[in-house]
Amino acid sequence: MATQTQHIPIDLRSDTVTRPTPAMLEAMFQAQVGDDVYEEDLSVNALQEKAARIFGMEAGLFCPSGTMTNQIAIKLLTQPGDEVICDRLAHIYNYEGGGIAFNSLASVRLLNGERGRFTPDDVLENINADNIHYPRTSLVALENTVNKGGGCYYTLDQIAAISDVCKANNLFLHLDGARVFNALVATRENPVDYGNYFDTISICLSKGLGTPVGSVLLGSKQLIEKAKRIRKVMGGGWRQAGFLAAAGSYALDHHIQRLAEDHQRATIIAQCLQNVPFVQSILPVETNIVIFQTPSERVNNEVLAYLKEHDILAAAFGKDKIRFVTHLDFTDSMLDRLIAVLRKASVTLEKKVI
Amino acid sequence: MATQTQHIPIDLRSDTVTRPTPAMLEAMFQAQVGDDVYEEDLSVNALQEKAARIFGMEAGLFCPSGTMTNQIAIKLLTQPGDEVICDRLAHIYNYEGGGIAFNSLASVRLLNGERGRFTPDDVLENINADNIHYPRTSLVALENTVNKGGGCYYTLDQIAAISDVCKANNLFLHLDGARVFNALVATRENPVDYGNYFDTISICLSKGLGTPVGSVLLGSKQLIEKAKRIRKVMGGGWRQAGFLAAAGSYALDHHIQRLAEDHQRATIIAQCLQNVPFVQSILPVETNIVIFQTPSERVNNEVLAYLKEHDILAAAFGKDKIRFVTHLDFTDSMLDRLIAVLRKASVTLEKKVI
Amino acid sequence: MATQTQHIPIDLRSDTVTRPTPAMLEAMFQAQVGDDVYEEDLSVNALQEKAARIFGMEAGLFCPSGTMTNQIAIKLLTQPGDEVICDRLAHIYNYEGGGIAFNSLASVRLLNGERGRFTPDDVLENINADNIHYPRTSLVALENTVNKGGGCYYTLDQIAAISDVCKANNLFLHLDGARVFNALVATRENPVDYGNYFDTISICLSKGLGTPVGSVLLGSKQLIEKAKRIRKVMGGGWRQAGFLAAAGSYALDHHIQRLAEDHQRATIIAQCLQNVPFVQSILPVETNIVIFQTPSERVNNEVLAYLKEHDILAAAFGKDKIRFVTHLDFTDSMLDRLIAVLRKASVTLEKKVI
Amino acid sequence: MATQTQHIPIDLRSDTVTRPTPAMLEAMFQAQVGDDVYEEDLSVNALQEKAARIFGMEAGLFCPSGTMTNQIAIKLLTQPGDEVICDRLAHIYNYEGGGIAFNSLASVRLLNGERGRFTPDDVLENINADNIHYPRTSLVALENTVNKGGGCYYTLDQIAAISDVCKANNLFLHLDGARVFNALVATRENPVDYGNYFDTISICLSKGLGTPVGSVLLGSKQLIEKAKRIRKVMGGGWRQAGFLAAAGSYALDHHIQRLAEDHQRATIIAQCLQNVPFVQSILPVETNIVIFQTPSERVNNEVLAYLKEHDILAAAFGKDKIRFVTHLDFTDSMLDRLIAVLRKASVTLEKKVI
Repeated sequence: MATQTQHIPIDLRSDTVTRPTPAMLEAMFQAQVGDDVYEEDLSVNALQEKAARIFGMEAGLFCPSGTMTNQIAIKLLTQPGDEVICDRLAHIYNYEGGGIAFNSLASVRLLNGERGRFTPDDVLENINADNIHYPRTSLVALENTVNKGGGCYYTLDQIAAISDVCKANNLFLHLDGARVFNALVATRENPVDYGNYFDTISICLSKGLGTPVGSVLLGSKQLIEKAKRIRKVMGGGWRQAGFLAAAGSYALDHHIQRLAEDHQRATIIAQCLQNVPFVQSILPVETNIVIFQTPSERVNNEVLAYLKEHDILAAAFGKDKIRFVTHLDFTDSMLDRLIAVLRKASVTLEKKVI
Repeated sequence: MATQTQHIPIDLRSDTVTRPTPAMLEAMFQAQVGDDVYEEDLSVNALQEKAARIFGMEAGLFCPSGTMTNQIAIKLLTQPGDEVICDRLAHIYNYEGGGIAFNSLASVRLLNGERGRFTPDDVLENINADNIHYPRTSLVALENTVNKGGGCYYTLDQIAAISDVCKANNLFLHLDGARVFNALVATRENPVDYGNYFDTISICLSKGLGTPVGSVLLGSKQLIEKAKRIRKVMGGGWRQAGFLAAAGSYALDHHIQRLAEDHQRATIIAQCLQNVPFVQSILPVETNIVIFQTPSERVNNEVLAYLKEHDILAAAFGKDKIRFVTHLDFTDSMLDRLIAVLRKASVTLEKKVI
Repeated sequence: MATQTQHIPIDLRSDTVTRPTPAMLEAMFQAQVGDDVYEEDLSVNALQEKAARIFGMEAGLFCPSGTMTNQIAIKLLTQPGDEVICDRLAHIYNYEGGGIAFNSLASVRLLNGERGRFTPDDVLENINADNIHYPRTSLVALENTVNKGGGCYYTLDQIAAISDVCKANNLFLHLDGARVFNALVATRENPVDYGNYFDTISICLSKGLGTPVGSVLLGSKQLIEKAKRIRKVMGGGWRQAGFLAAAGSYALDHHIQRLAEDHQRATIIAQCLQNVPFVQSILPVETNIVIFQTPSERVNNEVLAYLKEHDILAAAFGKDKIRFVTHLDFTDSMLDRLIAVLRKASVTLEKKVI
Repeated sequence: MATQTQHIPIDLRSDTVTRPTPAMLEAMFQAQVGDDVYEEDLSVNALQEKAARIFGMEAGLFCPSGTMTNQIAIKLLTQPGDEVICDRLAHIYNYEGGGIAFNSLASVRLLNGERGRFTPDDVLENINADNIHYPRTSLVALENTVNKGGGCYYTLDQIAAISDVCKANNLFLHLDGARVFNALVATRENPVDYGNYFDTISICLSKGLGTPVGSVLLGSKQLIEKAKRIRKVMGGGWRQAGFLAAAGSYALDHHIQRLAEDHQRATIIAQCLQNVPFVQSILPVETNIVIFQTPSERVNNEVLAYLKEHDILAAAFGKDKIRFVTHLDFTDSMLDRLIAVLRKASVTLEKKVI
């Protein structure tokens, strides 16, 4: 029986791999749907309103991916030839296929923040002078939590300070909130205040919240009206999307607070890793992401292979780093299995790799 | 009882408004899903393979909309500055938000076809000479059936002849097959031959086939690999899309042949309209679309309002035309109601509007 | 002697082929120049101010070509995804390499005007409704005179009426004034009024005015400030351009009124052509362009070859049309030679080609 | 008399500020010109051939600016969504108005080279894996000499090593040779070998070479044919550009070797600066650029103001750096004046600023 249990794979590559719970599936099944191109899908409309309300924004737009919500926001807030300020670890720069240039014809100014988090001064020092040789700086984009920074977060005070600099310099401010719920649970801050600081917010429903598909772009009514045009021309205008939206509304009602469990499990994993010989260092765990360094690309590959033999999937994060992301489908018993496998690795891999 | 029945609205604005049948819904909720960004969603993979096989293509890519599949195809087959040849009635030119320019930075050469259908000679006469003043002609795009042409279709022979001209002149050929299944049912032709003629095909699952969301782009393995990059950067990379893909596979198995019923009902509607005084002319009905002309914008509006009073929704198609589209959710009893309302209109509206 | 004279070629392919007169050359080489990227080229600054003043505009920007001034204007006055209304004969659509899409990611709506000239009603009927399926109509572009229309012109009243429609519908209005001086000389209208009607004007110095290189974009100070950025990023920021600008200023002072001579010579050519057997029809001559139709592509080629044998260059304009453009370097004695050659053609070619 | 001499300003802001010598002006005056859009300008054609021959390339294209030649090259060698590798000091990233994104829709990967010069390993480590999340790396761009690096250069061996890495990884290699002649004079290397290493080269005629306007893009015949299309659509197709091209040919014949004088004078300036109190550090002088650091923005401004009072113009290079560029119009007597003013500054400014 134990052998059989071991064969239920543990997938920690990302929090995007979750499948709907029975209750979420039930909500999806019973969704009232309609043609969202005509804005007649009641479940979509309800999700958009709910999400906007939570973040103190006027309106929302449900889209197939966080890349789309981010890219629409960048398009809304820049002109071709403008420059976007973001951290060198930012998802929008690293993982969206070069979309800032592809979709918005905009340049990037990369900041060298602390684990992907930058300061108001960083922004100030990187605003281009008004000179035809330089792109016009028009947008600052934060990521909260920062994926490549190991899930670290900004507090509301830090955000407010950056927002002040943006307003004082006529810069728009966008939040890539792919994992903003993890930040909110960790800081216990009120999301309704976010709306004061950002021009646009992208929240993702298919990461920690555990829905199958979708992100919501939030902003003023005027911006969201414009966003509908951009979504359409980019191919994101879908029809009876309410089946997916219903899962999103369910998740906003039921899956936010439970993220604390994911954070606890991530902390336990990190503690365990401190005693594993092939782990050189671990980024401080603030939410649901654990990133650790291995001595070399060879060891990195061997650790990943060893885990895979034990039905545990993790993500290579660069050549000599490994990332675990905890989530809705990662249970305490799986945590126990992972811990056991990691401890055994201390013995098994040690001889082999070091 | 009759009164009650009247209050179930008849929505003939488009065949996009359908909702899944119970059997389709069942297929959706039993779907095996996974993270499609990792290409691990079994239902998505199965749909893509099935659709490719049907049209004699190597590979497929499931996307949130037909606009996205069309726009990806245009991007794949053009360079910025190139020119696309299509009919002036083409959906890609008229209804995709200016996407040819927005996404692909390409120009259009508009042909003046017969109800949106053009000939090999039309193509030949519109290929630009090799001269730096002119855009480079690189792509021809057909629509089959032609929505703005009243659902008229191309036969395979006509397609083959256009394909010959394209191949002889180093032009790519794309099919906007939003309603290609209607064409196939009308012509009783074999879709497997389509793969010989087109470089890319977009088929839509959420029109006549009745699924909630999605279109599939078909092409060679090489093109579809490139298409994955473009879908990603445009924001179309979704996660557990298998719930929607399962509906698509179900529809490919069960909803193609039944389109003949939609065609019959459209024909009956057109026959009825011939005796309605405010109908000036009707485009010949070849599939599931009925477009008729009214004497003026005022009459057009009055007819639409009259229909709406009787719980019948139709689409204004320009200022003095009305479009009905028959579909999965339009039954024989609804047809009877529509006929009755149209006949009554002959009496009621006649005095009023003419 | 006569033989020798015949060997000075007569080049009527375009009015772009002229070379500076001795006086213009003198003005060029006495020009005070500086680095125009620093806005320190006195000759450039003087030209820009002079041109703006003539057309009642606030500011000007000297650029290497009329394509650049047109393309910058379109970029200034549209957003990606917008739609530009112009005639199907417009230079910006036909001869600028697909630049509307390439540089501005904008769609075109082509009007079917009379020889390239459209009316306020044409504009009104082609403004897209506010609907996410359609591009946003934002710009109307006139060409005056219309090259492909045979050099026909708009009067100021016609322009004012189109401008009214644009203002009432929040559309910008651009003038492609590649040959606007020909229009002004023909209508004897005052260019200073043009500034009331257009948001931007492109005037060309290297057509009828006879300078080597350059066009000037005119607009408000604010637009021209933005235009400098676009010129820079497109690569049009040049250094000591004053040598060319000085030619432009000279031409604005000395070469406008003499265009009347070009018009007279064009009229004489057209009169002569009426009696030439292989000429099927001639577009009415309004300025310096003569376009005539021949019976076939074969005849067209033979006429061009015949002219070339007699050291006369003309442009094929489509497959069965020929264009002559009169200009600064086309003298009365050349006109006599052309007439003689055309008359001889009546005899020589007649037997051959018809 | 001395007072009068002082009033001839010394402009060291850039080597772009030069004016043609009498002999160059004479060459311009006597240029044979024609319509370059028809490729009939003999002086343009001659310049293009001469430049290509010097660098061992097949063909050349004369353009109004180095920004245009660089931007055309990037467009030729990338697809929208691709990534360009260059140094964080690169002109194409810093000073071309965001053109990489604006014109080519391409991303940048910025290297942290030594004064703007990077190594084959830097390139290797920054090629993206083949994954839809990342832009496709397609182009590497060198700058030689590096402006922001203080005019430092690559040797041919260093270039060859980078070229090897590019070829092995299917990457194109472009040279921004705005000041490549300074590099060639400094290294005494043969430019004809450059053609082996680069796919495209941009050389500038209006910097050290002292012509009024223009750069030449070099490449294979096939690439230059494509480049003509791109130049046209960007607005760089000009007419009788031969007046400027003739200056370019003259400069290639007469102004290359004399760059050694500019280098000597730059070295003398740097030596003098070593003893000036407000100079904190000086970048090693390798060619014609001298960049030195001042203690603060305030001092920087005061030094620039002091120089301006003495009719000497220099460029602020960031907030606390100043750049001198020596050139054709900077003579030995001007050098003496500059040295005197700098020495006096040691006394005058010392009290004031430190």
